[in-house]
This record gives sequence, structure tokens and C-alpha cells, in this order.
Amino acid sequence: MLRSLVEGRALKRFLLENDAGDAHKSQRAVVVGGGYVGVEMAESFRRQGLDVKMVIRSGQVMRTALDDDVRQVVEEELARQGVEIVVGKPVAFEGDRRIEAVVVEPGDGSGSQRHPCDVVLFGIGVRPEVRLAQAVGVALGATGAIATDDHMRTNLPDVYAAGDCAEAFHLLTGQRDVVRLGSTANKQGRVAGTNAADGEAAFGGVMGTMVAKAFDLAVARTGLTAVQARVLGYDVRETMVKAQDASHYMPGVSPIHVKLVVDSATDRLLGGQIVGRRGVAKRVDVLATALHHQLTVADLQRLDLSYAPPFAPVWDPILVAANVAAK
Amino acid sequence: MLRSLVEGRALKRFLLENDAGDAHKSQRAVVVGGGYVGVEMAESFRRQGLDVKMVIRSGQVMRTALDDDVRQVVEEELARQGVEIVVGKPVAFEGDRRIEAVVVEPGDGSGSQRHPCDVVLFGIGVRPEVRLAQAVGVALGATGAIATDDHMRTNLPDVYAAGDCAEAFHLLTGQRDVVRLGSTANKQGRVAGTNAADGEAAFGGVMGTMVAKAFDLAVARTGLTAVQARVLGYDVRETMVKAQDASHYMPGVSPIHVKLVVDSATDRLLGGQIVGRRGVAKRVDVLATALHHQLTVADLQRLDLSYAPPFAPVWDPILVAANVAAK
Repeated sequence: MLRSLVEGRALKRFLLENDAGDAHKSQRAVVVGGGYVGVEMAESFRRQGLDVKMVIRSGQVMRTALDDDVRQVVEEELARQGVEIVVGKPVAFEGDRRIEAVVVEPGDGSGSQRHPCDVVLFGIGVRPEVRLAQAVGVALGATGAIATDDHMRTNLPDVYAAGDCAEAFHLLTGQRDVVRLGSTANKQGRVAGTNAADGEAAFGGVMGTMVAKAFDLAVARTGLTAVQARVLGYDVRETMVKAQDASHYMPGVSPIHVKLVVDSATDRLLGGQIVGRRGVAKRVDVLATALHHQLTVADLQRLDLSYAPPFAPVWDPILVAANVAAK
Repeated sequence: MLRSLVEGRALKRFLLENDAGDAHKSQRAVVVGGGYVGVEMAESFRRQGLDVKMVIRSGQVMRTALDDDVRQVVEEELARQGVEIVVGKPVAFEGDRRIEAVVVEPGDGSGSQRHPCDVVLFGIGVRPEVRLAQAVGVALGATGAIATDDHMRTNLPDVYAAGDCAEAFHLLTGQRDVVRLGSTANKQGRVAGTNAADGEAAFGGVMGTMVAKAFDLAVARTGLTAVQARVLGYDVRETMVKAQDASHYMPGVSPIHVKLVVDSATDRLLGGQIVGRRGVAKRVDVLATALHHQLTVADLQRLDLSYAPPFAPVWDPILVAANVAAK
């Protein structure tokens, strides 16, 4: 449903149903929450012609997913596309039969602000739905989601859990995590189903890989951000390069930013973040593959990556970043 | 220069200079050779409005790069785009001040055919230019290119070689090879330059990765084809899947073919070929990265690849292929 909203058709239908002719045509949207859902919905509203404000408590989009230097590229794109970021949290909604305004408390003591709007969308995260599981005695983990092992078994015999309600093992943090992505849910479901049907399968864990669309940009990350890595005790080296996603003389060539987070002690890659117009999602998958197999910066430099002018420069942006990151 | 031709601007200029007004406007091109240069030039000529025939001795485009099942997808695209493939080799050219026809010998005894045309382009491979090297006593390898070690040293002290004139080590065949790609030339040049300037660098070898554009398709490969692997003595398993390059409800979603070549004895990936409209080049880079680190099919299945509807289905085509390839 959400993805359908993002894609625009369902959103258009919703807006049509919400509107009562030109007199009440939705013109102003407030998006609460700065995660990828908020960013993608901001884009969808803009494409439908609405003014958009994003109300974000920290004022930072995709706060835990990105480091500051990468986030800045995304926020510049949002500003360029006319999205206004409002720092604070909503404390009241005004309106009778339909929404008329959101009242936002900035949290810096400067007093609340009223933001007139015709539609409000919340993208503030989800909590796992575990009531049924709890009712039958299935144990939860520290995350509040259902505790599972790598076979997606719960504490009860013959009871398996998979998807948004279940925990996943993060290969780099070594911690249990809850990942609300269809890719993880599908992998876990396949494992749970195989084991439930007397097969044998193990879930390989997650690497923190994700990608989102932010207007003309794709924003992707895998592994640890520099912030996350430092919290885990790593001494890290950060490299951020601005390269090009194709040969310089090709039509449509665009800048692409690649950030590498490297463990100073071992020279191993710990994470990567990529922002650009083209070839972002699958370039981050190269880094995810590298992370799965503990590649060092020197290993990255040696990769024989594909080259042809429409698809990459002779030095793929990943190799440019690896060359810069090399000691 | 060649890439500039492919991109179209230089080609347009060439055609304008070659033409003498409407009376002699180029209308028919013959491309000799079925490699990626031939395929990309066929596209460029078609975009300039010319009829195009490709004269290929084997009748097979990208003969050594692709297995038959993948090549078929490319040949269907060429046919759809109005490119006619002629089996044979050119034996004569007709015309006085300008080319008027190419005479092709099919090689099956059926007699030569005359193909009228206004322009002929050869994309039949290159031989390394090694005359200067030979003149000063630099040794050549079995390939006819300059023999080098992993520091890009030749047999002569302080003489280094890199690029199209020099050999490269193929990590999967274990053989010396000549790779005519800017990506390899640049990596080798960096290594040669570092060592020549008293630094220390080693070239990591090649994996046979390449990508080319064939009209609306990108065609990419890495590692060994099934044919190559069998020649090298491997017992291989081949998996070819037709998946989608994005979620099914996204605008512009297109089919993408992924082929995996797997060593039956070890379950290790030996090579991959991908053909599709979007996300091809960088998906093959995931496979190239996997090859560099000897991933098995089970390793591939576990990769946490990026997912968002505009960029991939919940099961990325690579994972679909890995799931099908799993025993």
C-alpha cells in the first residue's frame, strides 16, 4: 500500500477522494518524519503539485541511515525541489471535518508554529505487531520484535517468525535488529518456510543495505555509517568523493557521491553510502558484496568492474573512492 | 575517437563530411565484425537513420563474450531494431571515388553476395602495436602483446608496459590475456607509473568483465562463459533466468536476463552474463566482486542487496538467479 502511494497512482486517487472540487483541492501537505518514507512521500506530493513541508524532530532527513556529509547532498536536493524542512514535532492538529493546520513545537523554546495544510502524512516508523505471538507465549527480543534464531525459529517448537515482526541478525554490528524491508522479509520467509516444511535453510543476516528515491536522486547505504562505527568502538577513516556516473562526454552524465567508511586498524571496509542520479542502488550492492566478504580497500581497488562510457567512467566511482581511501 | 563515434557526435560529423548533399547522402552502412564495437556502431548508424547490415564471419554477435542463450536475447534486439546480420566475410569492395558495395563470401559455398552501401565500418579487433618495444628488445608474450609481470615490468630494467599493448593476467583462466578496455589500461598505467616512480604497486589481474550497449539493451559479462569454462575442464551448471529490473508496478519496469555459470564440483560462481535495459552494468559488477572472492551460490543467496521498487524487486534478479541455481 505504502509503495503504491509512493508510486503515485494511489496517492492521486487518495487526493481526488479527499478533495471536494476546486474549493477544497489539496494544495499543501505536511509530512511528519524524515525517514525514507517521508522523503519518498514528499516527492510524491510535489509531483502531484502540492506545497510540501517536512516536520522532522531532529531536522535531519534519514538521520540514522546517513552521515552528515552525505545527508547534506540529499537535503540540497530537497531544497532545490521546493521541500521545506521544519524542525520540531507536531503537538496539535487543527480543523473540523478536514485537517486545516499542524501545530509544531520546535523544541528550542522558540514557541510553537502553525503550518496550514490540507493533508498530513506520517512516516514515523513502525512497531512490530506481536500481540498474537505474545498471547501464545512467543518470546520477544530486546528490540520488541519476535526473537528468532538463524532458522527463523522462535522459542516455541514449530513456530517460526519472519518479516517486520521478527528480529534479524546484523552481520556488522553483531546485534539483533528489526529491518522493515521487503527484501529481508522475503529472505526470512523463504528460510522459515523451508524449515517449517522439514527442509534446511539458514538466514544469512543483514548488512544494513537500503536504497531510497529522493526526487532525481537515489540514496543508498550499506554496512555502518561512520557515526555507527565509532559508537561500536571502531577507529574509522572516512572518504567522500564526488565522481561522475558515466564518461564525461556522454549525454546525461551526472555527479555521483561515494562515501567509504574504513576500519583504520585493518583497512577493511565497514560501510558505504552513495548518492546520485544513476547506477546508485547496484553500486551500493557491490559494496554490500564486499562487506559480506571482508574486503579491504586494496581489494576494492583491484576489482575488475565493468566499463563502457554510457555506464561508468574508466575509473568507476567506487574505484575512485577506493583509490582516495587507500593509505 | 571510437567512443566518440559511438556516442554519435563525431559520427554525425563524419557522415556530413562524407556526404555531398542529398544526391550522395549516406543511406546504407555495412559494419564488418560482430564484437561490441560492431554492435555499438550498428546502433549509432541506425540512430543516424541509415540501413545497417552487420557482416560477421560466424554470424554470431559477441561470439566469445556470450553464451548462445544470452546472445539470442541480443540478436533479437538487433533484429527488432532493423539490423540485418549477414554471415560471411568481405572479399571485395566496389566503388570508385566512394564505396558502393561490399562483396561478401558466405563460406558455405553458396556464392558471394553484393551488398550495396555508402559507408563501411570495420570493428574486427586490434593487434597490439609493439614495433617500438620489439626494436629495443622488449619481449612479447604468447598473445603477441608485451609480456609483463604484476608490476607491469617488462624483461628490460626500468621499462614498463601498460594498456592495449601489454598482457594482463586473467584471474579465472590463469592465462595471460590482452584486454582492450580503458578500465584495465588505466589500472595498469597507475601500477606502472607508481612502480616507475619508485613506489610499490601490483596489478590485480582481470576478471573478463565488460559491458556494451546494444540499442535499448545493456549487455554485460564477467568471468567465464559456460563455453570457456568447459574448455578449461570445468563441469558446469548453467542457470538463466528472466526476471524484472524493478518492482512490477513501477513505470518502465523491464525484463532482465541473468545467467550464472557455476562449478558443479565446488558450487562456486565461475561467471555471469546479464542483458536488460537498466541496472545491468552494476549488477554484473556484483558478480565480478563475487568472483574476486570465490563466492558460492549459497553465498550469493545470502547477499543483502538493496531494495526499493524503482531500483529492484524484493528479490533482485541476481538473487532470483542464485535461488534457481541452488542445488
